This record gives sequence, structure tokens and C-alpha cells, in this order.
Amino acid sequence: MSPDPDVSISYRELMDVGPGTETRLRQAIDHILAHPGSLVRAQLAYRMQVAHGVDQARALAVATAIEYFHTASLVFDDMPAMDNATERRGSPCAHVAFGEATATLAALAFINRGYALLWQAIATLPETARLEASRLVTTCLGVQGILNGQSRDLQFHASARGEAEVLEVAKGKTVTLIRLTLLLPALVAGASGTDFAALEKLSTRWGLAYQIMDDFKDGLMTPEETGKTAARDAQLDHPNLAVAIGGEAAWHRLCGLMDEARHHVRTLVSGNPAWSELNRLQAVLDREQAHIQNRLLAVA
Amino acid sequence: MSPDPDVSISYRELMDVGPGTETRLRQAIDHILAHPGSLVRAQLAYRMQVAHGVDQARALAVATAIEYFHTASLVFDDMPAMDNATERRGSPCAHVAFGEATATLAALAFINRGYALLWQAIATLPETARLEASRLVTTCLGVQGILNGQSRDLQFHASARGEAEVLEVAKGKTVTLIRLTLLLPALVAGASGTDFAALEKLSTRWGLAYQIMDDFKDGLMTPEETGKTAARDAQLDHPNLAVAIGGEAAWHRLCGLMDEARHHVRTLVSGNPAWSELNRLQAVLDREQAHIQNRLLAVA
Repeated sequence: MSPDPDVSISYRELMDVGPGTETRLRQAIDHILAHPGSLVRAQLAYRMQVAHGVDQARALAVATAIEYFHTASLVFDDMPAMDNATERRGSPCAHVAFGEATATLAALAFINRGYALLWQAIATLPETARLEASRLVTTCLGVQGILNGQSRDLQFHASARGEAEVLEVAKGKTVTLIRLTLLLPALVAGASGTDFAALEKLSTRWGLAYQIMDDFKDGLMTPEETGKTAARDAQLDHPNLAVAIGGEAAWHRLCGLMDEARHHVRTLVSGNPAWSELNRLQAVLDREQAHIQNRLLAVA
Repeated sequence: MSPDPDVSISYRELMDVGPGTETRLRQAIDHILAHPGSLVRAQLAYRMQVAHGVDQARALAVATAIEYFHTASLVFDDMPAMDNATERRGSPCAHVAFGEATATLAALAFINRGYALLWQAIATLPETARLEASRLVTTCLGVQGILNGQSRDLQFHASARGEAEVLEVAKGKTVTLIRLTLLLPALVAGASGTDFAALEKLSTRWGLAYQIMDDFKDGLMTPEETGKTAARDAQLDHPNLAVAIGGEAAWHRLCGLMDEARHHVRTLVSGNPAWSELNRLQAVLDREQAHIQNRLLAVA
């Protein structure tokens, strides 16, 4: 699924790095922008908003802000003190190409720009919606969200390393950004309370399913397939559900989450066709699930 | 000058780290909060707002947000890949006490919380003021502001290392946060265009003067006096005006900036006594300047 051209262009251009910016910092930001990944979060956030009648510029700004926060989290995540990865999206990680200090500054630039885009995009919304958006962003990106997940990830080796802790890490690191991707557009689009609650549930199912599939991919696929350093989780004692509870139990867990996700998507889309973009991402996840099943059968 | 109790309490308590946060991350945040420094930015921002009739809770939130951004910048600045400092405010740096990864997450927590406090504090302002605040924060904290300064600092060793580049680094790293400290409260308080322009000029003078005094202190004082690792600038080829153009020329430069600063403070305070808090910071800087002069005379 390649993203709409508008989404790709916005990702590249809304960063808005002027000529006054120090050369190496600008190069690091350009390097990151040149490897945007699937832009799946931005694409979904953008399409859902437009389908609800949000004007294009605002929808693109909100979608790009979410993607910028995600991008920053990956740059930090790859650092030597964290995952110590060397490749991301088939290219050297920012800290490998530009050093840790410049990579840190580049990641902070994405965060700074993400907040600016969001702040400006929702400036004309009613005060209650703006405050709700602020709470959502703070919760998802702060010490209750992705920072908590990342910190649990770092301390995982010293934990009981069971299912519960693996899922806590996934909730912090993965669910929070999916949650932001679904709920922020819903807020901007003025979605109903019922739809908001269903999206909240869907974000947990998708987030956990996405993480479990990533866990399977870590063990089953090559760096050429994923664009990332491979089979690191067991080796480095990183949280991985397939490692923690075994492939079969993890597979059943994944199937259950995917069934629930499909149910929530169906409910949302049948209630309001403006959510039909959710079907597209569900189909992508369905294909990934089938792909993993084939690999599991091949190695069984 | 110790800060108002309200300012100290807000700095400690507005961080709002709940019990769900991973233990080590919470400990790192608590470690940073336990060494708040002089809180000079928060104190100034708070007093100026209150003097203009801004209600206390809003003034404290805006002031604390500015201080949180500053705090985060120090944590990153001290990292091994940046300044590689070991002590800050008479205590081990966060990365020394908790490792680089956790220190990074803690710094990001301060940034996330800073944006939340600010967003909520100005939610009821008119749209134009909110947009202006967003532009100001983005400019001061982004690739045109502190990130640019930090990146120029990193590349300083490869530059001409003259006065111009030293001042560019100081404009990026130091002036931007002083600018935010003066202009954000002015925006929230609804200051006049004339006062805004004078504060803009004052922020450059104060920011550069503050940095030059810091440069002098690096060469003239002990870690016990400054709470920081000492005499690193010449040793590590870091930007330092006294090193770049010599102590005497730097001293004259400092005197010129301080004269201009005093002029802008007088103009502002005589036009509107609500700016009189500026006198207090000017007096602090005056004492620092006298202290440096004594040291210079002692070593001459």
C-alpha cells in the first residue's frame, strides 16, 4: 500500500528546514525524510479525516505531525544506548550516518515540528476539543505512553520477562502511537462518542497485533525483507511474545486480537462509511498475518 | 536570588509523573527535579505575568513549561556525544546516574510536559495569540533556535572558530531560551508592540551577556563554585568568546551588551512598572559582571 502523493509530499515538505539551519543537522533531517517508510500512520490519519470532511491542509498537517512523532521515536529507539540498531528502512540509522548528537537534534526537530503542525492545525477547533487533543498527545507521547513503554523495554531484562511485561511494553511503545493515529483524527473530525470508544478498542487490538507480528518477523525474516537488523530480540533479551510464550501460543493470541480488530472495523464502517479507510489497513494486517502463517508452516 | 516558593513547588509538582510510570524513568525524572538550579527563567516569567494581572495558575504553568524546556536542553547538552559533562548543579548528570537511554527518556518527558502545560495554559487566549505563541515556541526550540545553536556548537571545531561563530552558537543556544522567557509571558500578558520590541532587543543583550559571563566562568572558576565541570572550553575546542578574541576584548564586548541591556530595562520599567521584575534579573547580572571583573583583576 503506497501512500497518497499528498501524504508523501507533506512528509517531505512540512518539515520546513530553512537555509539558516546548520548544514549537518539539515543533512541528518534530509536523510531521515528521504527514508519515510510506509507512512501508514499518516496515510490512515489523513484519509479518515478527509472522509469526514476535514479540509485537506488541516488533515495533512495532523497526519504529518503524527508521523513526525513516530519518526522521532524510531531515531531514539535505534540509538546505541537503546536498541543499538544500525539499519532502518534499508538505510543506515541516523546516528550511524551522522553521529548520536546530530541524530538526537534531528529527532528533536521532528518532535518540535510535530507539535507546531498540530497546534496550528487545530487552532480553530473549539476549546474543549483543543484541550482533549492536548491530553491525548500528552498521554500517548509522555510518561504514561511511549516513554513508559520505552523505559519498560530498557528494564525488560530485569523483569519477570513473561507475557504480562511483554504486553505492557507493546502497549507503551506500539499501542500509544496507533491510538494517537486513530483518536486524533477522530477528535479533529468530531467523531461520535460511540465511534471514539470503538476506535479506542481497535487501537489496542491493532497495536498489540502489529507488535506480535513484528516479534514474529524478528525471528522469521531477513534484514532484506524487513529493512532492519534481524533476530535481535532473543539474542539481546528484548521483549518478544513469541520468545516469551512460544510461537504457537503467540500465534493464537495474534489470531484472537485480529478477530476482535476485524469486528471493531466492521462495526465502525457499517455505522459510518467515512471510516472505510480502516478496511484498507485491516487488509494490510490480514496479508501480514497470512505471510507469517506461511513462514510458520514452512519452518514447522 | 531564590525563587518564590510557588515557582519551586510548581517546578517539582507540575511534572505529574503517576505511579504507572516505570520505576527507573521516574527516579531519573525525580533526580532532575531535585536539582532545579536557580529557576531564574521560571521566576522571571512568573513574576512578569502576575505583575500584568495574569492569574497565578496560568502564570505558573507558562513559567514552568519554559523551565522544563530549559531543563531538557541541559540533560541533552550534558550527554557524552555532546558536552560529555559529568556534573550538573553539584550532582551527577542524569546520564551518569541513570544511563544515557533513561536520561534521554527523562528529557523527552520534560519536553512533552512543557508542551502540555503551555497548550493548556493558553487554551483560552484568542486564536491569534495562540498561533503567535506556537510560532514563538517553534522558532526558539526548533531548527532555527536551540537545535541550530546546539548543532553549530557540535560543528564549532570545524568552523573558523572566530567571534562570529561563537556569537552564532550563543544566539542559538542561549538567546533563544531567554527570548522565550521574555516574549512568551509578554504574549500571555498582552504586552504592547513597543514593549514586545524592547523585550526582543533585551533578550539578545541578556542572552549574549549571560553566555559571555558563562565563558569567563569556565576559565576563571572552580567546579565547586559553578556546580559544573570546569575549564572545558579551551581544552575541548568549545565556543568561548574569551578564548576566541581574548579576555580583554570579550570583557569590553560584555560591558557594551550590559549597558544596552540596562538601557532597555530602564525604558521598559519607566514605561510600565509591571516590568520591574526585569530590574531584579538585571541586578543579578550586574553582580555576576562585578564578580568576573574582580577575578579578572586578581589574575591580571
